[in-house]
Amino acid sequence: MDTKRDPYTWEGATGWRQYRMLRPGRGMYYDVKRRLPYYWSDITDALTYRTIAATVRMYFVNLLPALAFLLDMNRHTDGFFGVNEALFSSALAAIVFSTLGAQPLTIVGITGLISLFNYTIYDIAVDQGIRDLYPEFLAWVAIWAAITHWIASFGNLCDYMRFITDFSSNAFGMYVGIIYMIKGVQELIAQFYESTAQAGFLSIVVALCYWFTVYALEMLPHTIVFRPVVRKVLSDYAYPIATIFWTGFVHIPGTIKRANVLTLPITKAFYPSVPRSWLISFWDLPVKWVFVALPIGILVTLLFYYDHNVSSINAQARQYPLKKPAGFHWDFALLGATCFISGIIGIPMPNGLVPQAPVHTDSLTEYKDKLVISHETEENDNHSMERRKKVFVAEMVVEQRISHFLMGLAIVGTMTGPLLIVLHTMPRCLFCGVFFVVGWGSIEGNGMTQKVLFLIKEHRFIDPSEPLLQVPRKKIMLFLLFQILGVGFSVAISQTIGAIGFPVIIISLIPLRWSLMPHLFTRRELEIMDALTADSDVALCSLGGKPVMPEAALERKRRGFTAEEEGDSAQMSDKEKDSFTPAEDSPEMKRMLDLERSGRGNGPYTAGKHD
Amino acid sequence: MDTKRDPYTWEGATGWRQYRMLRPGRGMYYDVKRRLPYYWSDITDALTYRTIAATVRMYFVNLLPALAFLLDMNRHTDGFFGVNEALFSSALAAIVFSTLGAQPLTIVGITGLISLFNYTIYDIAVDQGIRDLYPEFLAWVAIWAAITHWIASFGNLCDYMRFITDFSSNAFGMYVGIIYMIKGVQELIAQFYESTAQAGFLSIVVALCYWFTVYALEMLPHTIVFRPVVRKVLSDYAYPIATIFWTGFVHIPGTIKRANVLTLPITKAFYPSVPRSWLISFWDLPVKWVFVALPIGILVTLLFYYDHNVSSINAQARQYPLKKPAGFHWDFALLGATCFISGIIGIPMPNGLVPQAPVHTDSLTEYKDKLVISHETEENDNHSMERRKKVFVAEMVVEQRISHFLMGLAIVGTMTGPLLIVLHTMPRCLFCGVFFVVGWGSIEGNGMTQKVLFLIKEHRFIDPSEPLLQVPRKKIMLFLLFQILGVGFSVAISQTIGAIGFPVIIISLIPLRWSLMPHLFTRRELEIMDALTADSDVALCSLGGKPVMPEAALERKRRGFTAEEEGDSAQMSDKEKDSFTPAEDSPEMKRMLDLERSGRGNGPYTAGKHD
Repeated sequence: MDTKRDPYTWEGATGWRQYRMLRPGRGMYYDVKRRLPYYWSDITDALTYRTIAATVRMYFVNLLPALAFLLDMNRHTDGFFGVNEALFSSALAAIVFSTLGAQPLTIVGITGLISLFNYTIYDIAVDQGIRDLYPEFLAWVAIWAAITHWIASFGNLCDYMRFITDFSSNAFGMYVGIIYMIKGVQELIAQFYESTAQAGFLSIVVALCYWFTVYALEMLPHTIVFRPVVRKVLSDYAYPIATIFWTGFVHIPGTIKRANVLTLPITKAFYPSVPRSWLISFWDLPVKWVFVALPIGILVTLLFYYDHNVSSINAQARQYPLKKPAGFHWDFALLGATCFISGIIGIPMPNGLVPQAPVHTDSLTEYKDKLVISHETEENDNHSMERRKKVFVAEMVVEQRISHFLMGLAIVGTMTGPLLIVLHTMPRCLFCGVFFVVGWGSIEGNGMTQKVLFLIKEHRFIDPSEPLLQVPRKKIMLFLLFQILGVGFSVAISQTIGAIGFPVIIISLIPLRWSLMPHLFTRRELEIMDALTADSDVALCSLGGKPVMPEAALERKRRGFTAEEEGDSAQMSDKEKDSFTPAEDSPEMKRMLDLERSGRGNGPYTAGKHD
Repeated sequence: MDTKRDPYTWEGATGWRQYRMLRPGRGMYYDVKRRLPYYWSDITDALTYRTIAATVRMYFVNLLPALAFLLDMNRHTDGFFGVNEALFSSALAAIVFSTLGAQPLTIVGITGLISLFNYTIYDIAVDQGIRDLYPEFLAWVAIWAAITHWIASFGNLCDYMRFITDFSSNAFGMYVGIIYMIKGVQELIAQFYESTAQAGFLSIVVALCYWFTVYALEMLPHTIVFRPVVRKVLSDYAYPIATIFWTGFVHIPGTIKRANVLTLPITKAFYPSVPRSWLISFWDLPVKWVFVALPIGILVTLLFYYDHNVSSINAQARQYPLKKPAGFHWDFALLGATCFISGIIGIPMPNGLVPQAPVHTDSLTEYKDKLVISHETEENDNHSMERRKKVFVAEMVVEQRISHFLMGLAIVGTMTGPLLIVLHTMPRCLFCGVFFVVGWGSIEGNGMTQKVLFLIKEHRFIDPSEPLLQVPRKKIMLFLLFQILGVGFSVAISQTIGAIGFPVIIISLIPLRWSLMPHLFTRRELEIMDALTADSDVALCSLGGKPVMPEAALERKRRGFTAEEEGDSAQMSDKEKDSFTPAEDSPEMKRMLDLERSGRGNGPYTAGKHD
């Protein structure tokens, strides 16, 4: 299927036809039409080892952070959300999206941000004296969120995701990373208050060791030690290995066992954590509060619109050689449905997981170690040395639904009594380690981190092929300044009762990028420092095609002819781009794109990272 | 001065003149004659910033491990050795060797091995029911050691140090590294028994963080972040920075302060730690025990012969562009004197510090970051990419006595009341961090570690210029096997009452290398895997010149002419070597030599390490 020539486009549409809201469901229709033919192959393609590895890896990568956030929510909502709610939500999302989703690679689950939302709403409820009505109020937030999700997806509004660039998505990744690190530290501090100082200090040791274990194992495939299969297996099972080892560690009899670190609190299997029926009596909420829930529901939609779609885009980034097309509108409508169900039964609303999103695709990717031989000649020396290096090449992705579905079943299994008891043995400090792994992953590989590192390096030792060398230092600093301000404000507001407003800050970076920045930077500078986040054809086909960048439009305008004369179509703009920036195909530009791509906030998970 | 044509040689000596013992003091005479002309310049050359940096760095690098070993000795000798004894010993060694030593770069102080000796002797004394006579018995051990030191130095026996190769010195470095790591863990475990579990777990956190802090700061000069001066200053003061920060950390009021980690125990300034006079009444020891002390004294001499001289050789390795010559015989006689004094006043006998030895020279070396530009062309691709890398070049060494002397004065200052109180604030877990830094430094850069890493790597990704690729895997394993057995036996015996016997094992590796190994390996294999530890002309001049390697002699013999025909002189052997192994001057061989040199067990301290 040629995703470059997808029939879903708004180009050339005139009159009322150009208004997306007037043609409801058009995106969803094409999403289904585009993806349905692959449904059978989504099952048959699953018969490989990678499916098993991906199932196990995703079970841990999805479940552990979910439980970690659960602990956070549990503490801040006086126990309303417990392990059962977290498992229920994760299982619901996995079963729904693996069977009905247009893009089954996108893992949906509990994020740190919904945890932040839920307990901030709890704080507001306590503040307003409606603590008893918290479940009902939250149900209405979810119902409004569901409704606005459906408006957005029927109104084809996911198309605007194509305007998101790394400028804002890197800032978002950094924000998420920092929040995760903070949560990890907070959870460690909680040990001191809820258990003893002894348990607290031991927890720090275990959390740091867990972090180091997973990090080191996941780094293995990028080294050349051991055989390829050993490297891959150890990194595939990094989480299970570290989890089993360190869970066992805290139960070693003697000083360690006596330290009595806190473990995961569990309640009766399949029952809500607090005494209530699963169905929330949302019809009992006074009308006044129903309407107060509306703006909060919209904020949830704003968050999910950004968070879910960006994670889906990351799961389909260009570095993964995907063949099967995306379906953003359909999946967002489905997300509305899971919001609705979650709301009325009182479980956390699941959505796309930003740091973990690419992990699923990554663990389904068949990588091959390629040997690249080159000859190096030092200046003022004619002797040529042979250099060998390993390049980590993504050969193909096992695109299917089965790993996602099996993972969902495994989570359902975890909800049963015996496995709940196993969960109960897990020390809470282990989840701090998970916070650190996932959070650091989001910080380390982030484009912001790379730009900061570039700035503090001595430039004379940097290869001249580094594209950032072409941008004046001050411009890089200015670019970073906007991002740092965005991240700083978001992190700051997250510590207050205004936390639910943070999506507004992140999303406001998008218009800033599109309106103000083309005037502050040249086109070339922006091309080097920034890139469209949705960069693969399989993703762009569902978003109405590649947009023309504002800096390109501006440059064209300055050169004396308007966008209309040239034609505004993506095809035309591609052609036009070629004539303006032939450098884009140069090796430098390719390296730059690689750099940018690998910097999409995925840290150790990033497939584009070489040894 | 041409150190290659030094008058101190035994070549061409015939009749009784060829026997070293028959010409006592010849080596010492030439040592003094060779070095004395530099004495004034050893003072005037000191007027640079590097002297200050080296003084501060060595104060910490010498003092902290000394205190760490002291803790170990203190616990195992029921408090006979305390902080005052440790400081006294370090100060004595520093003042004596900085003013009278032929090679003032060699830092002499308290090692882990003398700590092991002292408390093993204590165990033996307890075992034999002469616990009350321990000080007197130890004094006699020291007196015998002093006497045998003087026999060795007057008998010109230090010459045999030139036969030491990396085969045994790497094994020794690995052994020392492992013992240090074990000591660090033991000290952490002691926290649990001597204080609370809370203090124990906090200690683990602090020790790990301290290790990471020093390691990261010392790595900075090998990166390209920040400006060169910032990198250098941060790494120069890595120990003071980490020590001050983490000492402060354990005193933060609240949970941390309440954890009550153990700090360094101190007693009254300038007095022995136990109630006694400084002078040990060694004349009171029954004659029987005086003679029992003799073999133990010889074992001490054996240890110091190896340990002190290897550390001195490491401080004068070829990677440091030294100009001033060594004086092994003279310094060893001086070491006999410090043994004697230490013995009769009951302080630990100081000797050369293996892992720390090169640190002094290193911190006195003016390094320059050199930019190397090369052009890389990938195979099947004509496009050439410019590559830049930083090479860390040693330009010159500030060879002088002042930094060593000032460090000695600083230790004397530390012995005074007010500064002793400052020492008392230092948590003992910090010394575990020191053990880990120094021990890991000795393991990480060790030639054994590098060979193991080479074996587990996928060879297709290794640059063909790697000389180890020319050696069959099985031969590398066999080479390693001997080393591992040596290290393994030494570590094992160190845990028993037979610990004082370990120098015999390490030293027995030298005849093994010279007699057996030339028959098991080809000359080429040994040239790649092994090298003379004393490789610089400034060191070899005091050892009677470069020896002919047995594998070279063997090969020559096999080719049909004997060593006598060719002439056995070092000069001749150099010539002869050239004709047999032209490859030695090739870039591969140079890289190999660099590799071997950087692998002399110095870890982060190694100057030869590039970014």
